Amino acid sequence: MSPEREHTEAAATSEAWPLDDRGIGYGDGLFETVLVRDGKPQLWEAHLARLTWGCRVLGIPLPQRDMLERPLSQAGRGLAVLKLILSRGSGGRGYAPPAAPTPRLRWQLLPFAPAPARWASGVRVRLCRLQLGIQPALAGFKHLNRLENVLARGEWTDADIAEGVLCDSEGRLIEATCMNLFWQRNGHLETPRLDRCGVAGTLRAELLERLPMSEVDAVPDVMASAEAVWIGNSLQGVWPVARLDGAEGEVLNCWPIGAEHRRLQAVAHALLGYPAWLDD
Amino acid sequence: MSPEREHTEAAATSEAWPLDDRGIGYGDGLFETVLVRDGKPQLWEAHLARLTWGCRVLGIPLPQRDMLERPLSQAGRGLAVLKLILSRGSGGRGYAPPAAPTPRLRWQLLPFAPAPARWASGVRVRLCRLQLGIQPALAGFKHLNRLENVLARGEWTDADIAEGVLCDSEGRLIEATCMNLFWQRNGHLETPRLDRCGVAGTLRAELLERLPMSEVDAVPDVMASAEAVWIGNSLQGVWPVARLDGAEGEVLNCWPIGAEHRRLQAVAHALLGYPAWLDD
Repeated sequence: MSPEREHTEAAATSEAWPLDDRGIGYGDGLFETVLVRDGKPQLWEAHLARLTWGCRVLGIPLPQRDMLERPLSQAGRGLAVLKLILSRGSGGRGYAPPAAPTPRLRWQLLPFAPAPARWASGVRVRLCRLQLGIQPALAGFKHLNRLENVLARGEWTDADIAEGVLCDSEGRLIEATCMNLFWQRNGHLETPRLDRCGVAGTLRAELLERLPMSEVDAVPDVMASAEAVWIGNSLQGVWPVARLDGAEGEVLNCWPIGAEHRRLQAVAHALLGYPAWLDD
Repeated sequence: MSPEREHTEAAATSEAWPLDDRGIGYGDGLFETVLVRDGKPQLWEAHLARLTWGCRVLGIPLPQRDMLERPLSQAGRGLAVLKLILSRGSGGRGYAPPAAPTPRLRWQLLPFAPAPARWASGVRVRLCRLQLGIQPALAGFKHLNRLENVLARGEWTDADIAEGVLCDSEGRLIEATCMNLFWQRNGHLETPRLDRCGVAGTLRAELLERLPMSEVDAVPDVMASAEAVWIGNSLQGVWPVARLDGAEGEVLNCWPIGAEHRRLQAVAHALLGYPAWLDD
């Protein structure tokens, strides 16, 4: 890539997946999508920590750090997304994993631009009909079995709806389809517990470390008493939620976007190198 | 492949998976593993029916039948396994599926031999510690999100244990890691309902059509009153269960293998072209 280039405009990738890879066969692997700024991965330690967690749960050997960082040399200047996929590799007999797996790492480096208008004005989200299955053995880390997210995201096509909020099969709030969920009640920050299902985002992990925020079990009704609601992840930053719709399109709650929202955004965006809410 | 060859000895395959395929990214696709005898797929209509079901649920266009059958021309004589993987293809924005997906079909043709000793003498199975999450939206059809099966199959390495039996998170019997479960109580055949989780096998579907057999909710304790227990799928046929162990290795139940077992095997194996229980 040309060093003069301001942004990563074209995708750079590693080679393809062989047919017998367990990542394609069973979703037997992990992934991370990492914001890269001027060749530097943002929240990199948090991404490595989550990948390490997933490797430990699935019994996949973690690649050396320099292997994971190698694609960054092709990122150029500006913003990009590095998508890393780590599978258990080939082998084993059917579902039985091989005794000594040789994991396979593949990556894509893609152009990326955030959505400053959503930082500023907030977004409209909806409750999804799909409920996440409760599976503690797969909760929190970022594995490749993501059909629930695909089905949930397929519930709407209206471009005015930025995200869908998911509950588990017992009615608890969990997350948005590709973002975590945060709210403030009685002046206190809360986010759903993710030990039964859901993906524990890296931005969420960093915010839990830096802010007084509790992990709680809650149902969608708590939204009615929330002073502010946000969704966010390590690529997009934090979007205030201006309106929550039900699954049938009915308006459930609205929130004026104000100073209350900016404090969380300021902390989150400082971590990602974004302005607090308005693009420069 | 040489027409003189008695068995399919080497793998024949289609080309590799591109990096941006949604099958690898999210497990966004389906698969079928089909017993092929002398180039003819066994239980083919049942496999096509399940693939059609999965395509309908996930919103993936079903390929033309002749596309699905094309690999069979390379199967040669004898037994082989055709593994078909159908993904939603590339595209979309993150989890959001593309409005008009171009599905991607890939296949492998692999040598196969069943295990006649298991038909004859039965097998030892164990209860798995992992409990299947309850997710009706993904129950029954054969999608690519199979980490639960991988984790369950990874619970033991003792070669004397042929399979693991899985319950759902509410304690109901569901299936074995890659087989369905059948038993006889009071002279009547039963198999678990699979509308909350599990994979509805093609052999199971054919047996439900041909035999008086009920789909039931049951807990592992019913095994104590079963006259006979079997596990089976469309590749291996039907294995009588001679012994059921608990997850800690304790013996829960034993069954002498006898005439009771042979009737179900006879019906199942006739469908697959296998002898009722002894290899010829």
